[in-house]
Amino acid sequence: MSRIAYVNGSYVHHASAAVHVEDRGYQFADAVYEVVAVLNGKILDMEPHLARLSRSLQSLQIAMPMSDKALSVVLNEVKRQNRLRNGILYFQVSRGVAAREHGFPDGSISPSVVVTAKRLNFDAIKEKQKTGISVKTMVETRWARPDIKTVCLLANVLAKAEANKGGATDAWFVDHNGMVTEGTANNAWIIKGSTLITRELSNDILAGITRSSLLEVAEKEGLKIEERSFSVAEAKAADEAFITSTTNFVMPVVSIDGQKIGDGKPGSICQKLIKFYWNYLEN
Amino acid sequence: MSRIAYVNGSYVHHASAAVHVEDRGYQFADAVYEVVAVLNGKILDMEPHLARLSRSLQSLQIAMPMSDKALSVVLNEVKRQNRLRNGILYFQVSRGVAAREHGFPDGSISPSVVVTAKRLNFDAIKEKQKTGISVKTMVETRWARPDIKTVCLLANVLAKAEANKGGATDAWFVDHNGMVTEGTANNAWIIKGSTLITRELSNDILAGITRSSLLEVAEKEGLKIEERSFSVAEAKAADEAFITSTTNFVMPVVSIDGQKIGDGKPGSICQKLIKFYWNYLEN
Repeated sequence: MSRIAYVNGSYVHHASAAVHVEDRGYQFADAVYEVVAVLNGKILDMEPHLARLSRSLQSLQIAMPMSDKALSVVLNEVKRQNRLRNGILYFQVSRGVAAREHGFPDGSISPSVVVTAKRLNFDAIKEKQKTGISVKTMVETRWARPDIKTVCLLANVLAKAEANKGGATDAWFVDHNGMVTEGTANNAWIIKGSTLITRELSNDILAGITRSSLLEVAEKEGLKIEERSFSVAEAKAADEAFITSTTNFVMPVVSIDGQKIGDGKPGSICQKLIKFYWNYLEN
Repeated sequence: MSRIAYVNGSYVHHASAAVHVEDRGYQFADAVYEVVAVLNGKILDMEPHLARLSRSLQSLQIAMPMSDKALSVVLNEVKRQNRLRNGILYFQVSRGVAAREHGFPDGSISPSVVVTAKRLNFDAIKEKQKTGISVKTMVETRWARPDIKTVCLLANVLAKAEANKGGATDAWFVDHNGMVTEGTANNAWIIKGSTLITRELSNDILAGITRSSLLEVAEKEGLKIEERSFSVAEAKAADEAFITSTTNFVMPVVSIDGQKIGDGKPGSICQKLIKFYWNYLEN
């Protein structure tokens, strides 16, 4: 649990970290966010996360609340004040506080900025990578722009809860053509032979930072890559499957809708990718 | 502007009405809301609004934070403390505060309850009813369940802003079959001859309380009613058009995508409906 949070210019005790009830993030999901991992005291991939935040803000026509440099100072200060060695920093920017009206507020309002910290045990994630997770496919229910990293996440919440109820770790959304879009907070991948397959970037999925880093790593390691949509049937018949995200890094998927992928254990290419990726992160 | 708000058991000054940054309403749009009109000191349609809130909460598996009776006491108290004669009460219930994880939190958390008040000048709305509003149609971008009254409203915000930018008052969403779903915060209606046409209830639209009341009023007044989808083309060729909502009541739509409806002025049936509806509200 975060001990100190940053809220609109102040470092405050986490318990008293609050925003106004008319913050548009609270009433309209009119806000964007990012999560960065902190590994051995170092913030990972700060630059692409800040670039994506900036793109998300632009997409919603929310002003940048501060420069990347200033935000990076705040993130480091929250990390320092929480003595965070391993975990995540969560940061959210909303359009700000205004009397409730659906349209953009008249005049200029100041965006709200919130940063919190959370400890994570990456050894537990390494353990989990040895056995993998299960996913359940379900019809895509999100709004039209999951490529913008907004807090409009209720569909994700319900899908994850539904998956959990059925004993699965996460959900994979499936579009109206029967093609997998992505997980509730991660990108979806399958492996066929020695080829990695993951959906091409579009408005339908988030441009994951780990997705992008792994594509680089995989290319450097000489693996074949296809950025294209794949169906649920193709995923179930794949040799291996996995997800990527900031907190899961590369996590094997060993069953889809209760059906084993391969022999139901993390496959050899996935294990290599995990090794490559930890190597990439820790060096 | 509200002077006093209710937040989780306390009546507080509006300026200091705040919720925790890890309230799931703020981080996941994991919250529902209602708006009731207060006319001449009386809360309108309290019962159906409370019933819909209860349905919304059930849909998201959020516990009812208090009985309808208790909530009704709170609403009346916020009204009283704000000396609200004419305006609205906004009330929102979120799943509550929990360490950030997409799925439902382990164990039971207490839902957050917020109530605010706002003065409205209904004479201004009566004036507006004499000239009507314009709407712009746009592709449906919302998540799959607009029938649940959640704060997952970012698509609505962007659509309204886009409509406003183009000089229109509001947007009408259009589904993949070219049929109008509804406005950004209101139900859409057209009139052909002496028949009122409005989309049938489904997961695609909100079951508007004003929609429902107006159907009753219209039936009592002997008007013909068809609850069915209509296309943008049919709407543009209609004799009259209008929207219904808690704050607009019955509001004529005099142009769609810049094209005049009828002669570009509120039509005779619409004017009758407005009269009937004010009559219904004020008696």
